[in-house]
Amino acid sequence: MITRDACKARDRADGLASSRALFQIPEGVIYLDGNSLGVLPRATPARVREVVESQWGNDLIRSWNTHEWVTLPRRVGDKLARFLGAQSGEVIVADSTSINVFKLLAGAVRIPDVGERRVILSERGNFPTDLYMAEGLAGLLGGGYELRPIDEEDVAGSITEDVAVAMFTQVDYRSGRVLDMAALNARARETGTRIVWDLSHSAGALPVNLNRDGAQLAVGCGYKYLNGGPGAPAYLYVAQALQPRLRQPLCGWFGHAAPFEFTPDYRPAAGIEQMLVGTPSVIATAALECGVDTLLSADMASVRAKSLDLTDLFIALVEQECAPFGFELASPREKSKRGSQLSFRHPQAYAVMQAIIDRGVIGDFRKPDLLRFGFTPLYIGYEDVWNAVAVLRDVMEKETWRDDRHQSRKAVT
Amino acid sequence: MITRDACKARDRADGLASSRALFQIPEGVIYLDGNSLGVLPRATPARVREVVESQWGNDLIRSWNTHEWVTLPRRVGDKLARFLGAQSGEVIVADSTSINVFKLLAGAVRIPDVGERRVILSERGNFPTDLYMAEGLAGLLGGGYELRPIDEEDVAGSITEDVAVAMFTQVDYRSGRVLDMAALNARARETGTRIVWDLSHSAGALPVNLNRDGAQLAVGCGYKYLNGGPGAPAYLYVAQALQPRLRQPLCGWFGHAAPFEFTPDYRPAAGIEQMLVGTPSVIATAALECGVDTLLSADMASVRAKSLDLTDLFIALVEQECAPFGFELASPREKSKRGSQLSFRHPQAYAVMQAIIDRGVIGDFRKPDLLRFGFTPLYIGYEDVWNAVAVLRDVMEKETWRDDRHQSRKAVT
Repeated sequence: MITRDACKARDRADGLASSRALFQIPEGVIYLDGNSLGVLPRATPARVREVVESQWGNDLIRSWNTHEWVTLPRRVGDKLARFLGAQSGEVIVADSTSINVFKLLAGAVRIPDVGERRVILSERGNFPTDLYMAEGLAGLLGGGYELRPIDEEDVAGSITEDVAVAMFTQVDYRSGRVLDMAALNARARETGTRIVWDLSHSAGALPVNLNRDGAQLAVGCGYKYLNGGPGAPAYLYVAQALQPRLRQPLCGWFGHAAPFEFTPDYRPAAGIEQMLVGTPSVIATAALECGVDTLLSADMASVRAKSLDLTDLFIALVEQECAPFGFELASPREKSKRGSQLSFRHPQAYAVMQAIIDRGVIGDFRKPDLLRFGFTPLYIGYEDVWNAVAVLRDVMEKETWRDDRHQSRKAVT
Repeated sequence: MITRDACKARDRADGLASSRALFQIPEGVIYLDGNSLGVLPRATPARVREVVESQWGNDLIRSWNTHEWVTLPRRVGDKLARFLGAQSGEVIVADSTSINVFKLLAGAVRIPDVGERRVILSERGNFPTDLYMAEGLAGLLGGGYELRPIDEEDVAGSITEDVAVAMFTQVDYRSGRVLDMAALNARARETGTRIVWDLSHSAGALPVNLNRDGAQLAVGCGYKYLNGGPGAPAYLYVAQALQPRLRQPLCGWFGHAAPFEFTPDYRPAAGIEQMLVGTPSVIATAALECGVDTLLSADMASVRAKSLDLTDLFIALVEQECAPFGFELASPREKSKRGSQLSFRHPQAYAVMQAIIDRGVIGDFRKPDLLRFGFTPLYIGYEDVWNAVAVLRDVMEKETWRDDRHQSRKAVT
C-alpha cells in the first residue's frame, strides 16, 4: 500500500527537487503535459525582454553582429550537441521538425551510394507529420519513390537492402515505447540504409547519445522536453562524416557558404549551417536557448532514474486507487522499453481527461481512447503523482459519464 | 536651395508625423534601414510578455484553444489580406520567405494545366534566396526542370509559353525599382504562365493590391516594413480561384484538414491552411501581429506620397550638399518606378556607410559599391533626411578614406 506520506518522503530525498524552482509552475496545476508543451523556464521572460526591447529595440540591425544573432542557431545547436552526445558542429536549430524531416529525407535519398533504392520506410504509427512529410517528398520526387509503412513489431526486420532511408521516432508519441537506437543503427549499417531519428519525445526525457549509438541523422522538437516555448524552432543533427555528402534541397540564403556576398548561385555552407534555410527567428531561438540551458544544468542519468520512478509510481497508484474504473495501461510496463510518459486506455478517455483538467491535473487525450500523461522529472514530484491519481479517483467516483462531452474541445500535441 | 527650416516646416505639416509615436526609435539614431529590419512597435513588448509570461507560463497547453494560438497564422494572414488587397482566406503567416517560395514554386509547377513546361523564370538580380530556392527545387525535381535567369530589362518579353512559373520581386532589394505588377500579370495570363510575386520590399512601402492587379501567388517577409521583429515569420498568398488546384509538397500536420485527428494519411486542408507545415512559432507570430496592426492603422496612399517626398528630398539634398563627393544614384529617378529606398554607388561605399553608422545614420552596404537607404514614412521625417545628409557631407569632408576599413564587418539585409 503506497501512501501520500511515502510520496512526500521521496520528494524530501529527491536530488532533483530543487530544479523545480527553475520553472514557473502555475498555482493549483499538476502539469503532466510537458511532453506536449513544456513549461516556462524562469530565465526565459528576462531573456526575451532583452532580445525584444534592447537588442531589437535599441540596437536594431547592428544586433546581427553585436549580439551574435547570425550565429545563434549554431550556438544553441552546439549546446544541444553536448546534451545529445554529439560533437560541436553536428547540430543546428532551424525551422520546424516537419521541415527538418523533409531536409534530411530529401538529402539522404540523394546521396550517391543510395543507388537505385526508392523506399522510405517508417512505422505506420509514427507521429503523423513525419509520415506526411515523407509522403509529400515521395510525391514530389516521383520516379518510383514510395513511403513504405510498417508495423511496430516489424521494425528491425523491415530494414532491408531496398530501403534508402528509414525514419523512426525513438519514443512513440502515444505509447511512450522506446526503440533500441544502437541496435537499429547497427542493423541499418549492415543493409546500407540510413535512419533519420525523430527525438521529439526522447531528448530531454532520457539520455540520448547519438555518436555512441551510431546515429547518422536526427531531428527533434524544441517545445516539449526542451521547454523552448509554443512552436519553438526545431533542431537537426547530421553526423560529421556524412556532412560532406548530404545536400538538402531547401537551399536558402542562410545555408549559403557566404550569405552576405549575395551571389546569384547557391554554394552550400561546408558544415551543419547548410541545413539553415531562411532568416531564423531570433526571438524564438533565444527563448529556446533558455530551455536548453536549463536542461544542460541537469544530470540526465538522474533525470532518467527519477522519470522511471515517477512512471512506476503512477502505474502502481492507478492500480491501487483506480482499480474499479477500467483503465488499461497502453505503455510498456518494462522500464527499459518506455520513455517518460504513460498512456491508459479508457472508453471515456476524452471526458475523463477533460474532468481532471478542470481539476488542475493536465494531461492530454489522444484518439481514439487514450489518456496520456507526461512526467518531467525536473518539475514534477512524487506527491504530485499522488495528487494526480487522487483527483483521477475522485473524478471517477463522483462524475456521471456522458458521451456528449466529447465534442467540446480540441487537443494539441 | 533646400534649407533645414524648410524640412522642419514639412514635418509640421505632415499628417503622418504622429505615427512615429507608435514606434521605439533609439535616441541619436536616424534609422534608414527599415527595409532590412523594421523598428520595434511600442505595442510589441507588452504583447510578447503577455504571450510568454501569461499565455504560455500560466495557461500552458490550454492556450492553443483559449488564446486561439491554433488560428493565429490565419488571423494575422487575414489582417495582411486587408492590407494587400486580398480576401480573407487568401493569405497566411508561415515559415520563412525562402520556404514559402519553395512551396509556391513547387505547387505551381505541378498544377496539371502546366503540362510539359519545365522552366522557372527569374530575374538574374532577384534576391539571392529566391534564386537559390528555385535552383534547389529544380535539382530535386530533375527531369529537365531548370531555373532560367534573365536580365531586368527583359522581364516582360521573357514570359513565354514554355515558362511554367515566373518569380519576380516587385521592388528590387538593391535599386528599389518597381515592376508593373498588373502589366506582368496580364502578360502572364496570355502565355498561361503563373507568377510568384515576392513582396518583401514592397508590402508596407507602397500600396499593393493583389486582387485588383490579377496576382495569383505571392510571398513576403515579416521583418522589414511589417516590423515583425528579427527573423519574423513570413507570409504567402494564393488567390482563391487557384487554391483548389495548388498542392504544396511540404505536407506538415498543420496543413492537414484535421491536424488533431492524427490520421496516418495526409489530407490537405481545403483553404489557405494547406500552406502551413509544422507547428508555428506563437511568440514570433504574435510579435508580427503587432507590426501588422500598426500598419493597418495607416493610410497606404499617404504612406506612398510621403515615401516619394522623402526619397525625392534625399536625392535633391545629396545633389545639393554632396556634389563633390562622387555619389551616383543607382535607383530610378522617376517616382513611379521606385519603392521606398534609394541606393547610391560610391567607390568607398563600405567605408562611407560604416562612418555614417558610427555617427548614428543607419543605412546599409550592398556589394560591390552600394550605399542603401530605406525610408519608412511612419517613423522617418523630413528633418531626419536633412540631418542624415548633413552627416554624410560632414563625414565626406572630414574623414580620410582608406580601403583597409573594408574588412571589418558584415552586413545583413
